[in-house]
Amino acid sequence: MLAAVIHAPYDIRMDEVPEPHVQQPTDVVVRVTHACICGSDLWAYRGVAKRQPGQRIGHEFLGVVEEVGASVRGFRVGEQVVAPFVWSDGNCVFCREGLYTSCLHGGFWGQIGADGGQGVAVRIPYADGTLVGLPSGLDDATLVRILTLSDVMCTGHHAALAAGAGPGTTAAVVGDGAVGLCGVLAARRLGAQRIILLGRHERRTALGKRFGATDVVAQRGEEAIAAVKELTAGEGAHAVIEAVGTEESMRTAISIARDGGSVGFVGVPHGGSAGVDIGQMFGRNVSLRGGVAPARAYIPELLADVLAGSLDPSPIFDLRVGLDGVPDGYAAMDERTALKVLVVP
Amino acid sequence: MLAAVIHAPYDIRMDEVPEPHVQQPTDVVVRVTHACICGSDLWAYRGVAKRQPGQRIGHEFLGVVEEVGASVRGFRVGEQVVAPFVWSDGNCVFCREGLYTSCLHGGFWGQIGADGGQGVAVRIPYADGTLVGLPSGLDDATLVRILTLSDVMCTGHHAALAAGAGPGTTAAVVGDGAVGLCGVLAARRLGAQRIILLGRHERRTALGKRFGATDVVAQRGEEAIAAVKELTAGEGAHAVIEAVGTEESMRTAISIARDGGSVGFVGVPHGGSAGVDIGQMFGRNVSLRGGVAPARAYIPELLADVLAGSLDPSPIFDLRVGLDGVPDGYAAMDERTALKVLVVP
Repeated sequence: MLAAVIHAPYDIRMDEVPEPHVQQPTDVVVRVTHACICGSDLWAYRGVAKRQPGQRIGHEFLGVVEEVGASVRGFRVGEQVVAPFVWSDGNCVFCREGLYTSCLHGGFWGQIGADGGQGVAVRIPYADGTLVGLPSGLDDATLVRILTLSDVMCTGHHAALAAGAGPGTTAAVVGDGAVGLCGVLAARRLGAQRIILLGRHERRTALGKRFGATDVVAQRGEEAIAAVKELTAGEGAHAVIEAVGTEESMRTAISIARDGGSVGFVGVPHGGSAGVDIGQMFGRNVSLRGGVAPARAYIPELLADVLAGSLDPSPIFDLRVGLDGVPDGYAAMDERTALKVLVVP
Repeated sequence: MLAAVIHAPYDIRMDEVPEPHVQQPTDVVVRVTHACICGSDLWAYRGVAKRQPGQRIGHEFLGVVEEVGASVRGFRVGEQVVAPFVWSDGNCVFCREGLYTSCLHGGFWGQIGADGGQGVAVRIPYADGTLVGLPSGLDDATLVRILTLSDVMCTGHHAALAAGAGPGTTAAVVGDGAVGLCGVLAARRLGAQRIILLGRHERRTALGKRFGATDVVAQRGEEAIAAVKELTAGEGAHAVIEAVGTEESMRTAISIARDGGSVGFVGVPHGGSAGVDIGQMFGRNVSLRGGVAPARAYIPELLADVLAGSLDPSPIFDLRVGLDGVPDGYAAMDERTALKVLVVP
């Protein structure tokens, strides 16, 4: 079968690989019907995050159960399922608390020895603790919306929760990528009164406004900080979503947080801690929370909203490709000609 | 009158200065009956925190109201009061939310132009928004307990709250100074089931045990991290209090936090952010919260416990001096022969 394989920086190919099969009684195999490319995949694509040549890639997908291990109780062949971007046993001390990303037996799609989501099929360890089943008969448009729960929308939600977005708050979102835009949706969903989106890519900030941003700040650095302060009577935002992961974005995020407020950070950090201004955090009681989103914990709640029609993150997809289009999809996201690429095998 | 004045690093003298008087109608003047020296005063003493020669010093005190401005409503001459370590107007947007340390008109005792707490008397700006009145007729021992609410006990409480100490949690406290020991008291008061104190000074850790520490870890760095992990089934502590403020202590604090847990930091940061391991925070969803404690918000609640006899931080004082003993008190704390110095003018 075909699967995306990373051979070197900027060298992702669709290679012929062995079909996956159930190996453990807790496994299932899922045939992928919808997948996508994540901004965080670009760190590997660009060689910033190291990968061994030959590793699979892709961690956002949904599909149909094709094979079921003997001890799996929750899933049957033919059922449609969505996979969060890490697998988890569902039983360990962290899973029981909802922090599935810290599962003692968890793992990440595409890690060495594991399948990736950008391919024909995926072996799912600990299927009962990982997958979420979907109603039957959903149309393509609905499945595309649900695909965002695999990572990007849950990550935006995690950031908004960590930032403390809620009724009456002013939220600010640093970054107009797909996660930032989902952060806007999440902040609106949680009741934020005002949502300031920091981004300079006009097509993206326009989508941010459609998603609920009330203000857009196109400046960067000190100018961006001044602009947010001006919009907030000099105070800053209660709830700041950091959805980029660089030193500069972290510095901006902390600086625009209101005293006593929080930065919810979900951008995979690639700049060390130099952007974390600990003196400013101390003097102004600004908190830093967040991290890798326990998507499995959030999917049921967000899925209900998607199915009810009140949550639709799917406009973040602006390029649709088949499996053979995956390498070009990476290039398009790398060059920022595409916001987020949908892969339909 | 006499007041402590910092002339240069390691040069604090009791100088004759003008008596303070009411300058604004919102002022009162307090004659100090009890003051103390803070671990954070040592940063100025050692020259790490810059001070202009001639600045006053000392920010923890209680005393008797001696003069009252025309618009002050809450206090009368002769009333005993305790002062938090910052003044605040009590009316601004941050004060109304309880974040008195971010008061738009606030300030810090000993800042340029302001009186310090280690002296005969102090002019209190915004007395109604700053001071907390005490019942009359309290004995010396009770007043010494209440003096800790000026800063150190409220700071320990802030750290414990920020760290999320509560019923059923495992707390860990990095630092066996007075703030760390008050953090132990605070964590116990908030219901922490287990309290691990990291410190190597035996007299201090012994007091920590008296205050409620269930375990003491005397190692540092990687060894300390391993020891805490071993005590917690490999998981770490839910609630970590960082009460030192160095790079190493921050690194330790984050490393011993359980996945999904929080570090409550109140040690004045003097090491930049290099100890903030953002990658570890991200991967394990460890939060960093805290900062300068809004003591004014906590005094009423903690005062009730002190008056009820259920909270007694006063054993942290192990040296009592008069005003003329303040310079020696600094030396004793600097050399760690004293844990915390009580000043009784």
